[in-house]
Amino acid sequence: MTAAVAGTVLALSGGVGGAKLALGLEDVLPPGQLQVLVNTGDDFEHLGLRISPDIDTLLYTLSGRANQELGWGLAGETWQAMQALEELGGETWFRLGDRDLATHLWRSQQLASGRGLAAVTADLARRLGVRSLVYPMSDDPVATTVHSDRGALPFQHYFVRYQCEPVVTGFTFEGIDAATPNSEVMCQLRKECYRAVVICPSNPFVSVDPILQLAGLWPALRDQPAPVIVVSPIVAGQAIKGPAAKMMSELGQDASALEVARYYCARYPGLVDCFVIDTSDAKLAGEIGELGLEVAITSTIMKSRADKQALARFCLALGGA
Amino acid sequence: MTAAVAGTVLALSGGVGGAKLALGLEDVLPPGQLQVLVNTGDDFEHLGLRISPDIDTLLYTLSGRANQELGWGLAGETWQAMQALEELGGETWFRLGDRDLATHLWRSQQLASGRGLAAVTADLARRLGVRSLVYPMSDDPVATTVHSDRGALPFQHYFVRYQCEPVVTGFTFEGIDAATPNSEVMCQLRKECYRAVVICPSNPFVSVDPILQLAGLWPALRDQPAPVIVVSPIVAGQAIKGPAAKMMSELGQDASALEVARYYCARYPGLVDCFVIDTSDAKLAGEIGELGLEVAITSTIMKSRADKQALARFCLALGGA
Repeated sequence: MTAAVAGTVLALSGGVGGAKLALGLEDVLPPGQLQVLVNTGDDFEHLGLRISPDIDTLLYTLSGRANQELGWGLAGETWQAMQALEELGGETWFRLGDRDLATHLWRSQQLASGRGLAAVTADLARRLGVRSLVYPMSDDPVATTVHSDRGALPFQHYFVRYQCEPVVTGFTFEGIDAATPNSEVMCQLRKECYRAVVICPSNPFVSVDPILQLAGLWPALRDQPAPVIVVSPIVAGQAIKGPAAKMMSELGQDASALEVARYYCARYPGLVDCFVIDTSDAKLAGEIGELGLEVAITSTIMKSRADKQALARFCLALGGA
Repeated sequence: MTAAVAGTVLALSGGVGGAKLALGLEDVLPPGQLQVLVNTGDDFEHLGLRISPDIDTLLYTLSGRANQELGWGLAGETWQAMQALEELGGETWFRLGDRDLATHLWRSQQLASGRGLAAVTADLARRLGVRSLVYPMSDDPVATTVHSDRGALPFQHYFVRYQCEPVVTGFTFEGIDAATPNSEVMCQLRKECYRAVVICPSNPFVSVDPILQLAGLWPALRDQPAPVIVVSPIVAGQAIKGPAAKMMSELGQDASALEVARYYCARYPGLVDCFVIDTSDAKLAGEIGELGLEVAITSTIMKSRADKQALARFCLALGGA
């Protein structure tokens, strides 16, 4: 492990797994030197509210408000509004806690007043006391659709309502062609401002792909000089959280770190410099190396705060980062 | 006191005072024979939610959910969302409880889907288990503006935000000329379906006037055969609740039941048949009678459920009702 080194780091993140590593990165970097570009393909409107699940997971995690037991939402949450809504026969499959509702009410009102999602997110982050810069991947709407044996499902219906039970056949991101990636991140990529780019251990298909598929984004990541480091979301054939492993087998792939590496190399040739795998997957290092990637092996399971910091430090020591 | 007599009764109501008498009327009438036409001039959009304060007061009161201590909102309410919104620096001057939020989320979603306020209100009443028919005065937006020494104020800003402190100079109801009164009530007035019309002890200026000013409504009430009974909202020079007395003195009137009677007679000639005053105002009976109204004297202060029922029975025994 190296000590913290200054220089701005860009992390690409979905929800929980990405937020864990982002927290570790924030801990080991000087204040303000972490930027997180967050998937918004999971965003949706529900009960008339504009909900950005991955952004909120980042903001709640980085502000120390995340509910550790549930793995989503706010710590110490209450559920009176949902209970009353259930009594009214309203839609309650997507659980919104009472305190969480305030976030959605506030954001929805700000967006309705004409502000963009990036500005609203920056303002919300400031109000929550988040030190790092959290950017939505785009201010434009992008909606992940999960194609499955139960038809085309909006992401949250697949993920929450049907608890990832449908067998997936593919994914589309409605609106992606018209969506502009976050302008600040694009500007900083052009200016070669980053010391490292870390693709967090998030779901490749529904968390990272929506970000990388934004027009011009992955070529810009590839062409800037900082190393691009991927932390495998698959450890010993399992996803730590979420449906990544299940999706891989349903798509006819082995659920393995090797297949994740192959996926990134095939889809984004030349993008990835270093690929971080868990010690339990050390045997895959040779084959991943044959893809032309630097392979780094460490413990990638982040249970404690120290685990998160250790993985963050490990990533920042790679590839000349 | 007479026993309950069958026949449909139409009550015109604002918020708390009207809801009390409506509850008494519901108690003494056979199920389904009370209809309440409710002021919606207080309705507004707040935090992106469509809020109908008087309708909710009726629904919460008639379903046994009203918060007796606060005098508004739901019993057993919690305030987590408001607290979180306050921490975010959001607008919290209009207090929305966690369970109450479910009502507004549900209604807002229904209205956004294109349903009218009457249909949505009927559905909400059914889901809350309300037996009586609660009609918004109109499906069209009407917004009460309070003109005051602090300028023109949207009603809830005057009422809640500034706690009725500004000195009023008058009232306007934006949208009233284009608003159609509730079609069911208009139809039943034309069919002469009612046995009595009770104008509840609500604020004449900001609760009853918006209803009566709807195109064609007060002439239809005047021209149908059932007696129109007004219960004075002013008792011994005071309003039981709300700013009616304060408004009267600011408008240069005595705050008295007599002035309320004069106001209705001047503004709606021929509309009122009976005027109910409290025993403490018995001395005013002669002058009110000189306006051409039948005057009835009883205890109009509704503290207990029995008080509400007694006043309801008293009203229904009047004017041949």
